[in-house]
Amino acid sequence: MSRALSTGLQLIGNNFSGEGDLLFRAFDPVQQQWLPTEFREATTGEIDAALTLAAKAFTTYKKTTPAQRAEFLHAIADDIVSLGDELIQVASAESGLPVPRLQGERDRTTGQLRLFANTIAEGSWVNARINTGTPDVRQMQIPLGVIGIFGASNFPLAFSVAGGDTATALAAGCPVVFKAHPAHPHTSYLVATAIRKAVLRTQMPEGVFSMVHGTSYETGQYLAAHPLVSAIAFTGSFKGGKALYDTATRRAVPIPVFAEMGSVNPVFFLPGILREKGPALAMQLLQSVTLGTGQFCTNPGLFITPGDDATTTFLQALQQGIGSLPAAPMLTPGILEAYQQRINALQQEGVVVLGAASPAPAKATPHLLQITAEKALETPHVLEEVFGPSSLHIHANSITQLYTLARQLEGQLTATIHGTPEDLHEHAGLIDILREKAGRIIINGFPTGVAVNHAMVHGGPWPATTPAAGTSVGTAAIYRFCRPVCYQDFPAYLLPPELQDHNPMHIWRLVNGDWVRTTG
Amino acid sequence: MSRALSTGLQLIGNNFSGEGDLLFRAFDPVQQQWLPTEFREATTGEIDAALTLAAKAFTTYKKTTPAQRAEFLHAIADDIVSLGDELIQVASAESGLPVPRLQGERDRTTGQLRLFANTIAEGSWVNARINTGTPDVRQMQIPLGVIGIFGASNFPLAFSVAGGDTATALAAGCPVVFKAHPAHPHTSYLVATAIRKAVLRTQMPEGVFSMVHGTSYETGQYLAAHPLVSAIAFTGSFKGGKALYDTATRRAVPIPVFAEMGSVNPVFFLPGILREKGPALAMQLLQSVTLGTGQFCTNPGLFITPGDDATTTFLQALQQGIGSLPAAPMLTPGILEAYQQRINALQQEGVVVLGAASPAPAKATPHLLQITAEKALETPHVLEEVFGPSSLHIHANSITQLYTLARQLEGQLTATIHGTPEDLHEHAGLIDILREKAGRIIINGFPTGVAVNHAMVHGGPWPATTPAAGTSVGTAAIYRFCRPVCYQDFPAYLLPPELQDHNPMHIWRLVNGDWVRTTG
Repeated sequence: MSRALSTGLQLIGNNFSGEGDLLFRAFDPVQQQWLPTEFREATTGEIDAALTLAAKAFTTYKKTTPAQRAEFLHAIADDIVSLGDELIQVASAESGLPVPRLQGERDRTTGQLRLFANTIAEGSWVNARINTGTPDVRQMQIPLGVIGIFGASNFPLAFSVAGGDTATALAAGCPVVFKAHPAHPHTSYLVATAIRKAVLRTQMPEGVFSMVHGTSYETGQYLAAHPLVSAIAFTGSFKGGKALYDTATRRAVPIPVFAEMGSVNPVFFLPGILREKGPALAMQLLQSVTLGTGQFCTNPGLFITPGDDATTTFLQALQQGIGSLPAAPMLTPGILEAYQQRINALQQEGVVVLGAASPAPAKATPHLLQITAEKALETPHVLEEVFGPSSLHIHANSITQLYTLARQLEGQLTATIHGTPEDLHEHAGLIDILREKAGRIIINGFPTGVAVNHAMVHGGPWPATTPAAGTSVGTAAIYRFCRPVCYQDFPAYLLPPELQDHNPMHIWRLVNGDWVRTTG
Repeated sequence: MSRALSTGLQLIGNNFSGEGDLLFRAFDPVQQQWLPTEFREATTGEIDAALTLAAKAFTTYKKTTPAQRAEFLHAIADDIVSLGDELIQVASAESGLPVPRLQGERDRTTGQLRLFANTIAEGSWVNARINTGTPDVRQMQIPLGVIGIFGASNFPLAFSVAGGDTATALAAGCPVVFKAHPAHPHTSYLVATAIRKAVLRTQMPEGVFSMVHGTSYETGQYLAAHPLVSAIAFTGSFKGGKALYDTATRRAVPIPVFAEMGSVNPVFFLPGILREKGPALAMQLLQSVTLGTGQFCTNPGLFITPGDDATTTFLQALQQGIGSLPAAPMLTPGILEAYQQRINALQQEGVVVLGAASPAPAKATPHLLQITAEKALETPHVLEEVFGPSSLHIHANSITQLYTLARQLEGQLTATIHGTPEDLHEHAGLIDILREKAGRIIINGFPTGVAVNHAMVHGGPWPATTPAAGTSVGTAAIYRFCRPVCYQDFPAYLLPPELQDHNPMHIWRLVNGDWVRTTG
């Protein structure tokens, strides 16, 4: 079998499989050419096989110790590093993203895996709660079952095969059946081989991880509707997330869908700070809008200013700045086309172009757009996400109108306020409004760049994510793939270590109402 | 206005309102007579008014301190106690439940309110997570918004107007619009007056609590579909919960529904324990099956035995015991009728009557039913919940078949195993299967009786509840009505006290990965 064919296969448990006849290839958006390797769309039989193995693996994987799972996660990270430059080169060809960005993304990916490994090795995340007495009841989080995860186009490593969702599910004790994003199938294949190697090396049960390819709507729907799947995680468009949500909530046995469906991430500039450093903020905003060709969930797609002189200076700086920014390739021809169409379509709806970079063939041109507050309030759909390097400006003719605009916003991943201490003191009410709209509120910063740690929230009210209580970044993401179970009047020898009297895991537990870590 | 009319009203904010023309009355199932007071079904205008006030109240209620909300919850508990005997008498007339049971239920209700008051006063429940550095990110749980709560028929106090869901939502900082169960409208009215008194006394914002009456499907659907509602909590039938779930997930902005939809709560008896104390267990099982006329979500509606000699003795004891148990009134004529119809219908499906108490007019007769394992596996719908004092026995002809039956079960609130240490050692695999099926696993006990504390789980996989990750009893229930929010790079003076460096609330927090409670 040629190398090209051998890489075009699904990973079903520990074996590669290529039963289907539907072939597809990835496109290099920088070189503007189709890449040579052909990939095979998974058949329903292959998806069934992956899920059957996953369900079987769950019976043993859920019983692995946290130390064993931590070792597995570290092994995946090590094996991703071992893929070396090939991974970066392949990912760059398939995504058009520059090598340094992908090197950073690889660090983030392995960092996430190791953060989850350390979190479960420490162990307190299970939220052990013990009430002794009659009855004796002891609660902890247990894994939910097999998780179906969909890779995102815009992070071929960090939100893909061994990305945050996979790290989270495997840390929790859940097997994963991963649907690779068709924009980077070869990258996905390489990372899948790293996971396979880690599975074999750390003796994890076969089926704890499988990966299937698919370009069609049907492949994703088949996974979401499958009785062996216990939850879905998705990062992508509203349309894609909503379709999975609809399928999953209408099953005979509904399952949760944790979908991150995008956001316009509004940035509010208050009067004082614009006077103080408008031009500098303009440069920072442009940088944030065009970072990664604007292909981030947290891209600031909307910014709102009060209408005064300082705003005029700020806008002039933006207009001057954007002219010198380069057009850049996008992830796929489809994404680029959608970006260009949206930019054009918005201009039919009262949106004007405030400034734009110079166009270049097959590249996305950074755009600054503008709409009046009145028009924005009348036709709120113009505020919907434009995926790419653009941002829409709204001029509020008063602070009251700025508040009104804030109140009308849909749910967001992030909301940002720039202000001097005086601005912020005066407009605490704005923070208050925005807290109801977003999962993360940023003061004097920009939303791009999501730190991966214990405190991050990457989620927010509908339509940013579903449900609002989830986060897909940070260690709190693990609770998406768990549920609490209560052990009543169990003899000591049948209790999991996390709940035994002598606390052998040395974890923090809520014992009769007090958080303690006593042992012995 | 006559007393009868004055009690027939909705509580909309702090005012009573009775705009509707649809009247209904409650029925006394013991005296077998309609009660005199007429109640008015809420109009959509009244529901709109309640929700508008609730949404307005949210803007200030969410800013109350935990100490203020704790004071409010204690005040509700005090004011319920102040209702004195009238509450118990009215509840007994409307439900047919005996006075001592209702006195106990009142204690549980006030106990729940005080437990949540103490939990929020302590404060660590907000799960504060702080990562200092660049950026500085700080996460905590915030209230979700207005919660629509549906009262249950079978707990006119503890799962009703000031019951667990209301206590939880108010503790979290969420206003409540409560849909009273039409079986106990007068009880609901009295408790609503107590909450109103507490609202006024502790100066809570008007609209933090409203109560509407309704007998129709449409009233509930209107509430679940309303744009001002952020989540629904429900305890009742599968049909009722599923209808709300379908509405809530198909809205333009879907919202979570936390529905507790019942369960058969299987009890497994292992061979050794049946030999050791079969007759004693038979008496305890009968007691659990008929407690409260079987009208508990955790009623053991299914029990499974291995087929050997000890089982024969156990079944004989059950047959002897049930004959002497009294028939008893049920909550409503509709519930009684449904019980009798199900008992009859099951007999058309291969279910046989193993034993029954003596019938009495307008009362539910305790029943023990039986079906073969083969038939149960073929027609799993015979295993669906029968709400009332009955339990279905399945004779497994082998331990293998007993495991097969366990594997076939739908999601449950509870699952119970009776066994000697030897039994349990031998059948740890059964515990393992049941852990995937239920939210609470009980060893050598019975599922009726749900302790209200930090460690309880009252929830489980579909169709027991949705989502499986929720619990509607115990302090962990609070997370249903919250979501995490992350404050990035906030100046100290804009942070909530829970997240300030010097930890003025003295709460446990995850600071840079370590759980600490340091202050200053």
